[in-house]
Amino acid sequence: MSQVIALCGGVGGAKLAHGLSRVLAEDQLTIVVNTGDDFEHLGLYVSPDVDTVAYTLSGLADRERGWGVAGETWQFMASLSRLGGEDWFLLGDQDLAMHVERTRRLAAGQTLSQITVDLTRAMGIKHPIVPMSDEPVRTIIKTRDGELTFQRYFVGERCRPVAKAIRFDGAQAARPSPRFRAVLEQGDISAIVICPSNPYLSVDPILAVPGVRKALEATGAPIVAVSPIIGGEAVKGPAAKLMRELGVTPGVVAVADHYEGLLDGLVIDAVDAHAADRLREMDVETLATNAIMSSDDDRSRLARDTLALAERLTRRRTTC
Amino acid sequence: MSQVIALCGGVGGAKLAHGLSRVLAEDQLTIVVNTGDDFEHLGLYVSPDVDTVAYTLSGLADRERGWGVAGETWQFMASLSRLGGEDWFLLGDQDLAMHVERTRRLAAGQTLSQITVDLTRAMGIKHPIVPMSDEPVRTIIKTRDGELTFQRYFVGERCRPVAKAIRFDGAQAARPSPRFRAVLEQGDISAIVICPSNPYLSVDPILAVPGVRKALEATGAPIVAVSPIIGGEAVKGPAAKLMRELGVTPGVVAVADHYEGLLDGLVIDAVDAHAADRLREMDVETLATNAIMSSDDDRSRLARDTLALAERLTRRRTTC
Repeated sequence: MSQVIALCGGVGGAKLAHGLSRVLAEDQLTIVVNTGDDFEHLGLYVSPDVDTVAYTLSGLADRERGWGVAGETWQFMASLSRLGGEDWFLLGDQDLAMHVERTRRLAAGQTLSQITVDLTRAMGIKHPIVPMSDEPVRTIIKTRDGELTFQRYFVGERCRPVAKAIRFDGAQAARPSPRFRAVLEQGDISAIVICPSNPYLSVDPILAVPGVRKALEATGAPIVAVSPIIGGEAVKGPAAKLMRELGVTPGVVAVADHYEGLLDGLVIDAVDAHAADRLREMDVETLATNAIMSSDDDRSRLARDTLALAERLTRRRTTC
Repeated sequence: MSQVIALCGGVGGAKLAHGLSRVLAEDQLTIVVNTGDDFEHLGLYVSPDVDTVAYTLSGLADRERGWGVAGETWQFMASLSRLGGEDWFLLGDQDLAMHVERTRRLAAGQTLSQITVDLTRAMGIKHPIVPMSDEPVRTIIKTRDGELTFQRYFVGERCRPVAKAIRFDGAQAARPSPRFRAVLEQGDISAIVICPSNPYLSVDPILAVPGVRKALEATGAPIVAVSPIIGGEAVKGPAAKLMRELGVTPGVVAVADHYEGLLDGLVIDAVDAHAADRLREMDVETLATNAIMSSDDDRSRLARDTLALAERLTRRRTTC
C-alpha cells in the first residue's frame, strides 16, 4: 500500500495531520512529529508536539484554547503555585498523566517511539504517530537577550525576545526514529506533506536530523507543503514575527524559499493566489484554496487538496 | 523554651499532632513523622505520613475520607487509567503537586527534611514537621502470601493478607534527621508523645532508627502514648487485625506491652478504664478520657489531657 509521510509540528500541523487521518487509511499515512520542543520540566518529560498531534487526532484537543485537552482542569497547577513551585509552564490535570506515564516508561528503558505507539493506541488513535527521533534534539533560540530553550522562548517569554538565529542541539548525533527510517526505506511513498507548522521551529528540526533531507528526496515522491503563512501573517504563532526578525518578508514566497531545493508544490490560501507565477519561477507548483481550518471538514478538504496537488505533480513527472 | 516531641504516623497520629499544635506554640513542639511508608510510585517520591500530617495541620485534609485533600479532584487518575497506566494507588490532582515538587527537589539534591520545611511553610504551617530520617527506611510486611512493601499491603491489598512479621529495610543504615537529632540533644524536653498511630507500622519504624530509643530515654522526659486501640479495636486502620495475626490480643494492655521499657504513661479511652490497674502493674500510669477525636476541639482536648499526664509523671518524679 502506498504511503503518505506527513512532517508535522504543533497546532496548525496537527490540524492537517488530523485531516489526512480522516481521508487516508491507517496503513496509508505516517505522521512524523517534531521533538525539538521536548523538554524536562519538574522532572517530567514533556513532548508538546507529539501530545498536540495525539490530542488532535483523538478528538481530545481543546479547540478554543488551541493546545491541551478540552475540559482540562488546573488543580495541580493551583496546588503547585501554593507550594511555591515553578508555574510558568501550565500542566493540566489530565495532560499531566501523559507526562508522568511517559517519564515513567522512559526511566524504565522504553524509547519515545515505543511509548508513543502505546499511549496513542490507548487513546484510540489508529494512524501511526512517530517521533522524528528517539535521541534528544533541542531547539535553541538565540535572541538579543541571550539564548533560550524553546519552551522558555515560546511559553516563558511568549516569543517576545527578538530572534537572531535558531539551532538544534543534539541534531547531529540524532538518527531518524526506527519507524521513520522504515517508512522512508519501504519504497512506495506517494507523497510527502510538510504540514502548516512553523518552518523554522517545527519543521526544520525534523530536516536537521542527519539523512532525513536526502531520504525524503530519495523516495522520489512529490514533496508538498501547506503554507502556514496566509496573507503575510501566521495563522497562529510566531512564524511571521520570526521571519521579519531573520530579515525575511513573511509570505508564501518566503515559505517556498525556506524549503528551497526540497519543495515540489505549495498549497496556498486563495488570498495569496497572486504569488503563483513567482512560485512557478522557483519551480514550485501551487494549489490555491481556502487554507484556514476551522472545522473537521476544513481539515479533510485541505488534506484532499494537498494530496491532489501531490497527485498532479506525480502525473506531471510520469508524463514528462 | 521546653519542647514536646511528638512521634507520629498517619491519620490518628496526625489528628493528635494537630491538637498539640493548637495548644503548644511553634517553638514548643516538634512533630517527628514516620517515613517507613514512603515509596516511589510512577517515578514520584510519595511520603504519605508526612503529607497527611501536613494536610491535617494546614486544614487542607479531607475529614470525611480520612486521607488526602478536601475537595480533591481525580482528573489525572482518570486520564492515567485511560492511558493504561498503573491506577491502584490514587493520586489526587492537588496532592500530585506535593509529589512532583518533592521529587523535583530531591533530584536537585535537597534532603527530605529541607523539602518538608519549605513545603509545610508554603502551606502556612508554623510548627516544625520533621521526617524521622533523611535516609530511606522501607516498611516490609511479611505475609502468608509473601513479602509486600507497605503501600502494596496497605493500599494495593487493603491489608487483607495475613501478616507474619514486619521489618524496616534500611533502618540500620539510617540516622535520625538533623532536626530530630537537634531537638533530642537540646536538653530541655518536657514530654515525648507517641501519637495514636499504628504501633507496628507507624511508630516502630521511628523507633527502629539506630539511637532513637536511647536518645528518647536520655532526654529524661516522660514518654506518654495515646492508645490507638479503643475497646479492643483500632479507631481506624489495621492495628487490631495485625495484633491478632501476630498473636496479640488487641487492647490497651497490648499497646503498653508493645512499648515495654519505653513507656511511662498511656492515655486510654474511658471504655478501657478497667485496665488501669493492670497497666500500673506494668509501671505505666494512665489517664482515661474520651480518646475519640471527631472535632478540632476533641484534638485540642486530647492533646491537653496527654500533656497533663506527662506533667503528672514529671511531678511524681521530682517529688520522689
